[in-house]
Amino acid sequence: MVIDTQDEHPKHRIQLSKVGVKNLKTFIITERSGIRHHIIPTVELTIDLPAEYKGIHMSRLVESMTEVISDEFSVHKSVEELQIHILEGLAKKHPLNHGEITFEFEFGYASRTPASNKRTWEICDVVATTAKENGNATYCHTIEIKVIGNTVCPHCMANNEGLTHMQRAIGALKVVGTTENIPTYGDMIEVIESSFSSKTYSLLKLEDEVHVTRRMHDNPLFVEDVCRNILQHAYDKFSDRVLEMYAEATSLESIHKHDVIARGRIVTNGD
Amino acid sequence: MVIDTQDEHPKHRIQLSKVGVKNLKTFIITERSGIRHHIIPTVELTIDLPAEYKGIHMSRLVESMTEVISDEFSVHKSVEELQIHILEGLAKKHPLNHGEITFEFEFGYASRTPASNKRTWEICDVVATTAKENGNATYCHTIEIKVIGNTVCPHCMANNEGLTHMQRAIGALKVVGTTENIPTYGDMIEVIESSFSSKTYSLLKLEDEVHVTRRMHDNPLFVEDVCRNILQHAYDKFSDRVLEMYAEATSLESIHKHDVIARGRIVTNGD
Amino acid sequence: MVIDTQDEHPKHRIQLSKVGVKNLKTFIITERSGIRHHIIPTVELTIDLPAEYKGIHMSRLVESMTEVISDEFSVHKSVEELQIHILEGLAKKHPLNHGEITFEFEFGYASRTPASNKRTWEICDVVATTAKENGNATYCHTIEIKVIGNTVCPHCMANNEGLTHMQRAIGALKVVGTTENIPTYGDMIEVIESSFSSKTYSLLKLEDEVHVTRRMHDNPLFVEDVCRNILQHAYDKFSDRVLEMYAEATSLESIHKHDVIARGRIVTNGD
Amino acid sequence: MVIDTQDEHPKHRIQLSKVGVKNLKTFIITERSGIRHHIIPTVELTIDLPAEYKGIHMSRLVESMTEVISDEFSVHKSVEELQIHILEGLAKKHPLNHGEITFEFEFGYASRTPASNKRTWEICDVVATTAKENGNATYCHTIEIKVIGNTVCPHCMANNEGLTHMQRAIGALKVVGTTENIPTYGDMIEVIESSFSSKTYSLLKLEDEVHVTRRMHDNPLFVEDVCRNILQHAYDKFSDRVLEMYAEATSLESIHKHDVIARGRIVTNGD
Repeated sequence: MVIDTQDEHPKHRIQLSKVGVKNLKTFIITERSGIRHHIIPTVELTIDLPAEYKGIHMSRLVESMTEVISDEFSVHKSVEELQIHILEGLAKKHPLNHGEITFEFEFGYASRTPASNKRTWEICDVVATTAKENGNATYCHTIEIKVIGNTVCPHCMANNEGLTHMQRAIGALKVVGTTENIPTYGDMIEVIESSFSSKTYSLLKLEDEVHVTRRMHDNPLFVEDVCRNILQHAYDKFSDRVLEMYAEATSLESIHKHDVIARGRIVTNGD
Repeated sequence: MVIDTQDEHPKHRIQLSKVGVKNLKTFIITERSGIRHHIIPTVELTIDLPAEYKGIHMSRLVESMTEVISDEFSVHKSVEELQIHILEGLAKKHPLNHGEITFEFEFGYASRTPASNKRTWEICDVVATTAKENGNATYCHTIEIKVIGNTVCPHCMANNEGLTHMQRAIGALKVVGTTENIPTYGDMIEVIESSFSSKTYSLLKLEDEVHVTRRMHDNPLFVEDVCRNILQHAYDKFSDRVLEMYAEATSLESIHKHDVIARGRIVTNGD
Repeated sequence: MVIDTQDEHPKHRIQLSKVGVKNLKTFIITERSGIRHHIIPTVELTIDLPAEYKGIHMSRLVESMTEVISDEFSVHKSVEELQIHILEGLAKKHPLNHGEITFEFEFGYASRTPASNKRTWEICDVVATTAKENGNATYCHTIEIKVIGNTVCPHCMANNEGLTHMQRAIGALKVVGTTENIPTYGDMIEVIESSFSSKTYSLLKLEDEVHVTRRMHDNPLFVEDVCRNILQHAYDKFSDRVLEMYAEATSLESIHKHDVIARGRIVTNGD
Repeated sequence: MVIDTQDEHPKHRIQLSKVGVKNLKTFIITERSGIRHHIIPTVELTIDLPAEYKGIHMSRLVESMTEVISDEFSVHKSVEELQIHILEGLAKKHPLNHGEITFEFEFGYASRTPASNKRTWEICDVVATTAKENGNATYCHTIEIKVIGNTVCPHCMANNEGLTHMQRAIGALKVVGTTENIPTYGDMIEVIESSFSSKTYSLLKLEDEVHVTRRMHDNPLFVEDVCRNILQHAYDKFSDRVLEMYAEATSLESIHKHDVIARGRIVTNGD
């Protein structure tokens, strides 16, 4: 006979939130527009815990996940659809008011060098979350993507006869939306890449390097400019589709040991 | 003649928040109750940026900091007092509506082994933030401390003739309060350490190891229990002094490759 | 007309080694025994630089890689075979005496829970290096795999009436060998998993948890024991196939904030 | 009566090396030339383990350390001297053939802005190791220091009418020597800082930023140049004092998502 310690009363009757598993790595396959992605996400899967119960049933969380993904031949339409299936399965196994699942992973996409037109692969970081409130019919998705680009200081350029400093920068865009309307990773990557002084590339032959360096000098941008560019480009593209947009730009200053950062947010609901 | 590019109008008139420097490492000295702490914090110092300005003056942020801390013989009463001085200096140099400074650092404290009573040094992680709204007379402090302890599974113990699994765990407590009322790091550490199955120690002679291991078996706790213990102990000690308390407990499961986590929050204002 | 700055003489005529690209992320597909792996490795690709040249041609390194992997439909027999192709391509583009390529990535493999026999996916870390000396006909491979398991302290158990502490542990095995003889990842994973007090699993239902916990209590091992187990099991399985074997075991002590570690090595060449 | 499980015979009689504690954080105070440093190092302390013993006595390692450092008023002449005391104490407690202790920590040093001459604090990373062979009368020290600076691409500059790209870079110098002859951290930092296109600073007022940016354009350097500069400058300053010198330069390319790296080594013993 099993003793369900979790269902006992706790010593201190305090309600908890976001209780579950974290840093769990697993293996999933998605296929969108004919392109397969094998992904090893780092997973966090959590639910709330009412004040009167001692614990949640952790193994039911993992089981909800393995039941959906464990078949090595199962191919899912998207990360978002897969996350919904896991939360649906979990709701049948475990009472919950709020359920939430996050995948963090690297995502590869094809690109081309700007002058020599050679094929390259670029990699960005994705954090994809799906959440569900009990009694709420729809799932809410939050997707954050981070891409590496660069900044060129317009203030130094204006005060130094055109000489300036430039550096690697990281642009991030986070959007919140419903399953039908959430943008694709590709569209989000495009928004971020177009917001830097220049995109960056795995491969640059000399003609490409010359092209990129000129583009950078023609397009000097503060980290604040990059952050606003991301927000504006996202607004232009997604304002009728997402509820909230967050941007963050970080510049790994070449003249300092520290970074500079700018953050912003546009809320579109009510539009 | 200097061109102040920062004061030009931006291409996209979008208000930004938390714009500034990040990952800046510096050197500070504090002295409290006669004990000196030399600290190398990782600093984030940010302000808001109105829609009509292209950029903030980043060097004024750093200068506000170096003017307060650069004298190698200057000793400060506390991290919180030092952060207030920096924000005060910044408010004179740069218009701002919201200013915020965060230090992340490791903090050492003396302890004693539980049975052999030998002296040890233990280290925890601190994140200390001070924020100020324009027009608001008081500064708001947020302090988060993370300490390493352990958990022992009560569910396995109850179903396995007393045999169970145990593991390293991390307990975190975050409090929000005013300068006069914010708890000391030492009191916060005590709250966290008393919430685990057992405290952990740098040094344990065999008699100590026996003592700790017995204590662990006598005090099996879920990660949910540890989280609630931290909240309850913090409430008992600080409820009249802090506005909000957050707790998080993470258990590095010994039978899994992943962690389990629980989070909670108590708001005391209005009390 | 291109100026090849790299081919000029340097200010200081000092020979350099392992010059190249690092932290480059790319996308590859391998297929072995009918199982496809899409991998996003973090790549280091380096060559030596003679004293008389100012620099290496960095873009030729990346190009050697993108030429082999850029076709999104190209599927490679193995990481090792792919690394050889890249070094072969590089040797044609760039003079070099020593070339070396390393991929770091996560690798997923199927497992089954020990009592309930449910399917799970487990993830481990792989570092795979291929190196070639000029004039040497064969390529040398080094593969390191890290898997998470656990340790249970036999010393505490012996002195504490059977009560003891246990914790998460990490086992690593590194082997050096030729293309024909290098072990598969699966065989290396098996060696490591069988060396712990117990394997760990993503999913454990209560009956599995009881099984694992009993196994742990029946098989108490120091970190030194785990390290020697890995070496002995690797020797038993691979001694006629690999030249060198290294093992490392790290235990995330549940009674301490720090880890304990053991390392060892067996050289088999000449055997 | 204590059962010394460690002194039993192991299942597999394999000799191990570098067995001990890792990721142990502690608290030390040094004073050199009147300047006090409070340091929270991450410690690794290891010894060898002969084939016939099951384990080492881990608590004796930590105890050797706490006995030397635990008094909160004890001030040590240098990290190197402190490490020798710990190894001396350990040799009395535990038989060992090879003992080795490593401290990793951040180190702050005062600097001045290049044009406005304001005081700043800069931080670098230090890894300091002391090792002793049984029967060998002297201790061997290895010190590695990493400092952040920058690189400016001379190849792009030569082919692009003076336009080029620049970026943050990391320079590392590692030296091996005896207690009497090991260089100071300050001298090593100077060697590294003088090897970049330019030093970097926490604070730069506009006049400083102009100064640094011009210096960078006047001094374009590949990562290979920075690596050779470090080696040559170290050789000029330390060749009669150290046995081996290693250098590594890493450039966080602003036009790529990846880094480029160069490594080199000069052995001076026999000189």
